[in-house]
Amino acid sequence: MTSKTTVKTNVGNFFEDFRVGQHLVHAPPRTVTTGEVALYTALFGSRFAVNSSDPFAQALGLPRAPVDSMLIFHLVFGRTVADISLNAIANLGYAGGVFGVPVYPGDTLSSDSRVIGLKANKDGKTGVVYVRSTGVNQHGQTVLDYRRWVMVKRAVKKAVKERDLDAAAPETVVPELPAAVPVAELHCPYTLAPGSFDTARSGAEFLWDDYMVGERIDHVDGTTIEEAEHMLATRLYQNTAKVHFNQHVEREGRFGKRIVYGGHVISIARALSFNGLANALNVAAIHGGRHSAPSFAGDTIYAWSEILGKDALPGRSDIGALRIRTVATKDRACHDFPGLDATAADPAVVLDLDYSVLMPRR
Amino acid sequence: MTSKTTVKTNVGNFFEDFRVGQHLVHAPPRTVTTGEVALYTALFGSRFAVNSSDPFAQALGLPRAPVDSMLIFHLVFGRTVADISLNAIANLGYAGGVFGVPVYPGDTLSSDSRVIGLKANKDGKTGVVYVRSTGVNQHGQTVLDYRRWVMVKRAVKKAVKERDLDAAAPETVVPELPAAVPVAELHCPYTLAPGSFDTARSGAEFLWDDYMVGERIDHVDGTTIEEAEHMLATRLYQNTAKVHFNQHVEREGRFGKRIVYGGHVISIARALSFNGLANALNVAAIHGGRHSAPSFAGDTIYAWSEILGKDALPGRSDIGALRIRTVATKDRACHDFPGLDATAADPAVVLDLDYSVLMPRR
Amino acid sequence: MTSKTTVKTNVGNFFEDFRVGQHLVHAPPRTVTTGEVALYTALFGSRFAVNSSDPFAQALGLPRAPVDSMLIFHLVFGRTVADISLNAIANLGYAGGVFGVPVYPGDTLSSDSRVIGLKANKDGKTGVVYVRSTGVNQHGQTVLDYRRWVMVKRAVKKAVKERDLDAAAPETVVPELPAAVPVAELHCPYTLAPGSFDTARSGAEFLWDDYMVGERIDHVDGTTIEEAEHMLATRLYQNTAKVHFNQHVEREGRFGKRIVYGGHVISIARALSFNGLANALNVAAIHGGRHSAPSFAGDTIYAWSEILGKDALPGRSDIGALRIRTVATKDRACHDFPGLDATAADPAVVLDLDYSVLMPRR
Repeated sequence: MTSKTTVKTNVGNFFEDFRVGQHLVHAPPRTVTTGEVALYTALFGSRFAVNSSDPFAQALGLPRAPVDSMLIFHLVFGRTVADISLNAIANLGYAGGVFGVPVYPGDTLSSDSRVIGLKANKDGKTGVVYVRSTGVNQHGQTVLDYRRWVMVKRAVKKAVKERDLDAAAPETVVPELPAAVPVAELHCPYTLAPGSFDTARSGAEFLWDDYMVGERIDHVDGTTIEEAEHMLATRLYQNTAKVHFNQHVEREGRFGKRIVYGGHVISIARALSFNGLANALNVAAIHGGRHSAPSFAGDTIYAWSEILGKDALPGRSDIGALRIRTVATKDRACHDFPGLDATAADPAVVLDLDYSVLMPRR
Repeated sequence: MTSKTTVKTNVGNFFEDFRVGQHLVHAPPRTVTTGEVALYTALFGSRFAVNSSDPFAQALGLPRAPVDSMLIFHLVFGRTVADISLNAIANLGYAGGVFGVPVYPGDTLSSDSRVIGLKANKDGKTGVVYVRSTGVNQHGQTVLDYRRWVMVKRAVKKAVKERDLDAAAPETVVPELPAAVPVAELHCPYTLAPGSFDTARSGAEFLWDDYMVGERIDHVDGTTIEEAEHMLATRLYQNTAKVHFNQHVEREGRFGKRIVYGGHVISIARALSFNGLANALNVAAIHGGRHSAPSFAGDTIYAWSEILGKDALPGRSDIGALRIRTVATKDRACHDFPGLDATAADPAVVLDLDYSVLMPRR
Repeated sequence: MTSKTTVKTNVGNFFEDFRVGQHLVHAPPRTVTTGEVALYTALFGSRFAVNSSDPFAQALGLPRAPVDSMLIFHLVFGRTVADISLNAIANLGYAGGVFGVPVYPGDTLSSDSRVIGLKANKDGKTGVVYVRSTGVNQHGQTVLDYRRWVMVKRAVKKAVKERDLDAAAPETVVPELPAAVPVAELHCPYTLAPGSFDTARSGAEFLWDDYMVGERIDHVDGTTIEEAEHMLATRLYQNTAKVHFNQHVEREGRFGKRIVYGGHVISIARALSFNGLANALNVAAIHGGRHSAPSFAGDTIYAWSEILGKDALPGRSDIGALRIRTVATKDRACHDFPGLDATAADPAVVLDLDYSVLMPRR
């Protein structure tokens, strides 16, 4: 009976199950609606006008309010979990993330991944899996394309003898990861008549021209995470990673409690960043990112940002790109920019994200 | 003043208020939208592709993604509470539940019930009320038809003397309850071209043909319930049963805390069952069900299933039915199928559900 | 660097920043969808049929189910917070609130305010700001127009010497506030054929004619507030007042915990009032209101109402107005109408609201 009773269940892929070049088709496709959008607003309190108002978006040349960039990210990412990171120990990093065509309510997103690298760890128990994941809409247009690498467990049964480990380990392939998405690859879906951007209704007067490289912004506010909130959010994305949901198991685990999905902190930080970056229309690229420490229910998240770069978009005088480093902390206000020295670990830092946003120019 | 100040309030029906044959019109009608669907996803993390994606549903011959069967159940059920179970002590069972035409966002559901049985309990304080409840859409088409029986309090003022009790008690009528919904009564809204079902995007390769009667599946994962979650869900259905919402009263009650709506556990179990039953397109019938024990915030729900039967649908080679027993537990993993012997009570078991799903055939 | 790093952030307006006659344009505009409506149902469990069902609303002459009055209030209010009450200590009162054209899913709401009064407090640290705020839809039609007054902090740097305080204080202007919205100003969007109102599906038989001035109704039920719930609700409205969200700061504050947005209690009270006032189609006016005491997660809210007045609408025999006082309490049932004597403070009372609803006549 044993074989019959286990064969139907997805136990997830272990490190040995991946092959470089392998193509993974993720399930299920997901039709995004205004229901998801409203929940996302309630979960994070985001106030970016372009995502909040159809007429505001139409004044930027869009048919209606597009879905928030990070909601797209979570939905595309969420689909990949059952195949890639069900047996992950840690989400190690992101690179080369490019957002494509906007997503509107009614669009259906599907995700696929290709394994682009594998590296067994010396402990014999884990390995690093590098994937390039792509989200497309119902027309096959790319909405997001990004790399991530995760530390994945090896199947226990194989981790017995070192010789076996060596035999089972695939050839190490560490992919070349882009240090940044080139400006020429950023998608800009807006068309903006000169002087037409409504800063009264966007919530702040500051445009691309007003930011300086090296400028730092404390986003001031803090948001405390509740168990119900991070679980609602993570399920909204159909992300099924076990550590977020099962207190019965986690109370015996490393931390004694459920771990908050790292992307939850990204969304909190992006929502907090409205206060200082209100005219960042969307995230156009994620150059890199690191969840420096886990977050838990009860933590209060703060954030600050530094302007890393200002990029004109080729052939565009209406919109420019800002490259931004946003650092999020827990239970630590950000007036003095904790984690400013990225080379020295600050125990309060939970997120260090390097990304580009699009912003209207004067 | 006293009479004026109490007459407007619905105190709910007590056992003496019911009559066999009585027709109850429930309020209010409810238009279901993508908002409800998104919230349901966030509350349970369900991943069944047909409910998740419009194009996936269209490939099955539907106009768009239908509403999850159990959300229909909860919405139809929720309407009945104010008239039937506001003074209920326990929801004793379900039988003969048949799902009719699919429900799509934009449809409006109304519920009606007929009292089909009454049985006073010997304690003089309670009685069992049997009802047949029907949910219809705005076209009058049946979306769900089921029987349930509940233990309802007698009005306190009448429960004074035994002689009065006897006088007040209606004639006992125990209705004949179907042991199972006949296969010929299952509704199958799908049309599936041979070989066209997309198992890559549905999340699992196993179809109707691959399941065996007697096969058991541990659904592996566990979900911890939070107070905010079960209350959000139960209010989403406009189910107003007091015990779920009022800690000020419940802290003095039997358990010292709010009781989770039993249907919440059904939805968790159905969502967990994706892992092993991913291609169960919908619940077509609920043959029977029992909430064996109450659940509370903080409980972690697990589930396992046994295939009780395989039924071909008359005249259909594309879709078949699986009759399934799903058992849910709290704070108890299901690798060894707790409650397997249904005749011996297992304290960890909180739900024992007997139902049929539709699944594509090879 | 200091100047560069703070200038982009909105620290909110302090008392000295306001001028009588000042016009404030609030951000961002907000497109309301069925997503918001579903979340509102899940948060409060409201069962008013006109908001729950498109066909029910159509039978009242509306194109579809309108958005609940109090959701409109919260959305219009939410927009004003960043400009008016980010540095508020207390929301002191409401007056002259008139709801205009109905709001339907798909409408986009914008808010503007005018400062109509200012009064420095003698403590030199605070002042009262009176504003008249207006919410309009995408056609420029007014959906809500109301006055509120809030106690706002003065900027710390100016609160040094009494002489400076006098110098900095603006001339006191206390606006004339309407004691009540005149009946002639109430908007009635319904058209109701005689005898056509469906009391079976609305949930109660009592119509305008059945209520008596002086009648009191205990709404019976109680609802316990969870942290996740009030934060989800308040963020849904994009209300960013800090005290609701940041436990890291609030645990050092006055109460040691986050304060629930006062409007959350209004919505709970309105939802509870269904039991006794089920045929109140909408709130047409808010004559006055006071949050008598703060509420916190864990509090259980109860409510009772008194009929203050019955007003025929000019030229209308199908619909009438009821003027109602609704009192909400925490951790205190309302069978004996706590706070009945409004002049004697009752520590259990958290809300005292004076408003008018529209209700079908016989």
